[in-house]
Amino acid sequence: MYNFEFRNPVKILFGKESISKLSGEIPTDANILMIYGGGSIKRTGVYDQVMAALKGCTVEEFSGIEANPHYETCMKAVDVVKEKNIDFLLAVGGGSVLDATKFIAAAALYENGDPWDILAAGVAVEKALPLGAVLTLPATGSEMNGNSVITRAERQEKKAFGSPLVMPQFSVLDPECVFTLPDRQVANGIVDAFVHVMEQYLTFKVNSPLQDRLAESILTTLIEEGPKVLADRKNYEAAANFMWCATMALNGMIAVGVPQDWSTHVIGHELTAFHGIDHGRTLAIVLPGVMHVKRDNKKDKILQYGERIWGITAGNEDERIDAVIARTVEFFESLGVPCRLPEYDVPESTITKIVDRFKQSEAKIGEKQDMDYLEIEKILRNRL
Amino acid sequence: MYNFEFRNPVKILFGKESISKLSGEIPTDANILMIYGGGSIKRTGVYDQVMAALKGCTVEEFSGIEANPHYETCMKAVDVVKEKNIDFLLAVGGGSVLDATKFIAAAALYENGDPWDILAAGVAVEKALPLGAVLTLPATGSEMNGNSVITRAERQEKKAFGSPLVMPQFSVLDPECVFTLPDRQVANGIVDAFVHVMEQYLTFKVNSPLQDRLAESILTTLIEEGPKVLADRKNYEAAANFMWCATMALNGMIAVGVPQDWSTHVIGHELTAFHGIDHGRTLAIVLPGVMHVKRDNKKDKILQYGERIWGITAGNEDERIDAVIARTVEFFESLGVPCRLPEYDVPESTITKIVDRFKQSEAKIGEKQDMDYLEIEKILRNRL
Repeated sequence: MYNFEFRNPVKILFGKESISKLSGEIPTDANILMIYGGGSIKRTGVYDQVMAALKGCTVEEFSGIEANPHYETCMKAVDVVKEKNIDFLLAVGGGSVLDATKFIAAAALYENGDPWDILAAGVAVEKALPLGAVLTLPATGSEMNGNSVITRAERQEKKAFGSPLVMPQFSVLDPECVFTLPDRQVANGIVDAFVHVMEQYLTFKVNSPLQDRLAESILTTLIEEGPKVLADRKNYEAAANFMWCATMALNGMIAVGVPQDWSTHVIGHELTAFHGIDHGRTLAIVLPGVMHVKRDNKKDKILQYGERIWGITAGNEDERIDAVIARTVEFFESLGVPCRLPEYDVPESTITKIVDRFKQSEAKIGEKQDMDYLEIEKILRNRL
Repeated sequence: MYNFEFRNPVKILFGKESISKLSGEIPTDANILMIYGGGSIKRTGVYDQVMAALKGCTVEEFSGIEANPHYETCMKAVDVVKEKNIDFLLAVGGGSVLDATKFIAAAALYENGDPWDILAAGVAVEKALPLGAVLTLPATGSEMNGNSVITRAERQEKKAFGSPLVMPQFSVLDPECVFTLPDRQVANGIVDAFVHVMEQYLTFKVNSPLQDRLAESILTTLIEEGPKVLADRKNYEAAANFMWCATMALNGMIAVGVPQDWSTHVIGHELTAFHGIDHGRTLAIVLPGVMHVKRDNKKDKILQYGERIWGITAGNEDERIDAVIARTVEFFESLGVPCRLPEYDVPESTITKIVDRFKQSEAKIGEKQDMDYLEIEKILRNRL
């Protein structure tokens, strides 16, 4: 395994009625800005639970964070932060709200010009407001890491940044929040968590048997528990197991000492930028193409994944890899998530646009940094 | 799964030559007390590496921490802390040195009388000196948690305490430290890490499939990598995998939301207190007895462990449980660790002394808090 550094100080408060513990985690004299999305938290009762827990605290609100949160929206929240002297941000929602809150935390204290540079130019975050989270949708893992992805709508650009300074001080995970989620969000969340694991696991072998098995543990449990959540939204135990899998998938624990890919995400972000396709769904589209085109780079790990997760051992290596890809697609489709571009009405011309972007940037991505625009084109054409 | 809270802010610096990164983790103006054991770090070169990394820093030394560190020795270190105005403790050694350092950190700032109360009366730690660690022996997991076990030699008592305030700020894990360890310490470390997992895993089912699989991942990897380390001490990859398993076994990650046992440890501590038997070896003695006597409480988990770890599926439940216990003993013995009391020259009279202690304290232990002195006697007699 590689040398590594690891630190994850996020405090997790997990379980039934855990939202009530919120106030103990925020300084009593804080000026809180509660950040949320389109108002579903009011329908589900989470808003009321949060407000009850924060009784006596100074709380301002900022709502309207959209899926694939917009830079433009975040900057409006930054104005509120400055105007109201906010010193603590509380994200209440799913990954989009959490990602937005992280960017707002960094942008509010950014002093070197346009905060867009944090995303587009990779300028390091030097300070950020403290933040906490109440997670309502298991999927992105944002509740226990310092990563954030923001979209600049006007430019159809989706960019990521990361900093330990925007890790939540705490995240409240109440599995009962899953009870009110629509099928589509549950399915997206399962795929998202699954592909997060794959990005850190389906690379090449570096003799890291523990990390491999931990990753496989999350995959197996998602395959086992995910469909139970879809079948019965009030199954608390299944919801809890799914929720904890999604957090563990991206809190850094399975990433230590191993190579990471993330090409599926980078390509998927382009599909969201151009067509607004749900993030999880873009991953279900792209991953099978990455597995197909990078079957040489990833051979050993694809075969290990196929054998340990799906019991695929018959046939020569190429046949087994094809079977593994087919089985993965079958799993995503069983959740109601289609895996091909035409099923999302994406025209072939979009492939040209995306490929052009990668050609111009001369970026090479993937665990070996060897995936160029030509391979990205092959991957996307494989998904037609 | 149960509700839980989890937070582990320890920074891990893992890998070859990671000791050189030490100075970046300690405030430059700190008055450091470097705490170590009997001087093996001088023979192995770790002492020189640490001193080179701390060049320019103010470093006092306190050596002589023994295995199963003594309260009496720790209190001498507390005197040095006060005398020299120490404000940062650096533990360099194995679990004993780390545990001692944690107690010294808490005792040095204890203001309510005799610091022994932290151990014997469970008085909460309210403040502690900051500490860091350079781990030389994978085993106890102390490098990534807030737990400590201290022995009061004059009273033959071994007591534990825990506090987030004594979690190391950082721990340096260089697998090359394993190269110079004697067989006995490697074997003890493998057993110690293995039984740490068992204490958190071999209880009763609470529908926690992810935690179960994470625990099984560590067990499987220890079984696979441990013997490689014993066979070839210079196998860096095996040493690294073993080292990371030992840390992951007790950093809280597999304990979230599940019941925990720890009766093997509590009983094992008594064997160390009376006979000075190595901690890991006491666990190898006691665990098979606990599995035998608590076979009803633990039935489902013993059968799952037997099937998933050892492939034991033949026979009725009692036969399978017997086979699982035998296979576990066989594993410990294959490492050179005997599992019966007479092999350590422990007389039957010691059983009486230990049972009397539990009878007098009226303590009940184990994951259901239902193990009394009568069962403890059965467990120990099973190990004759």
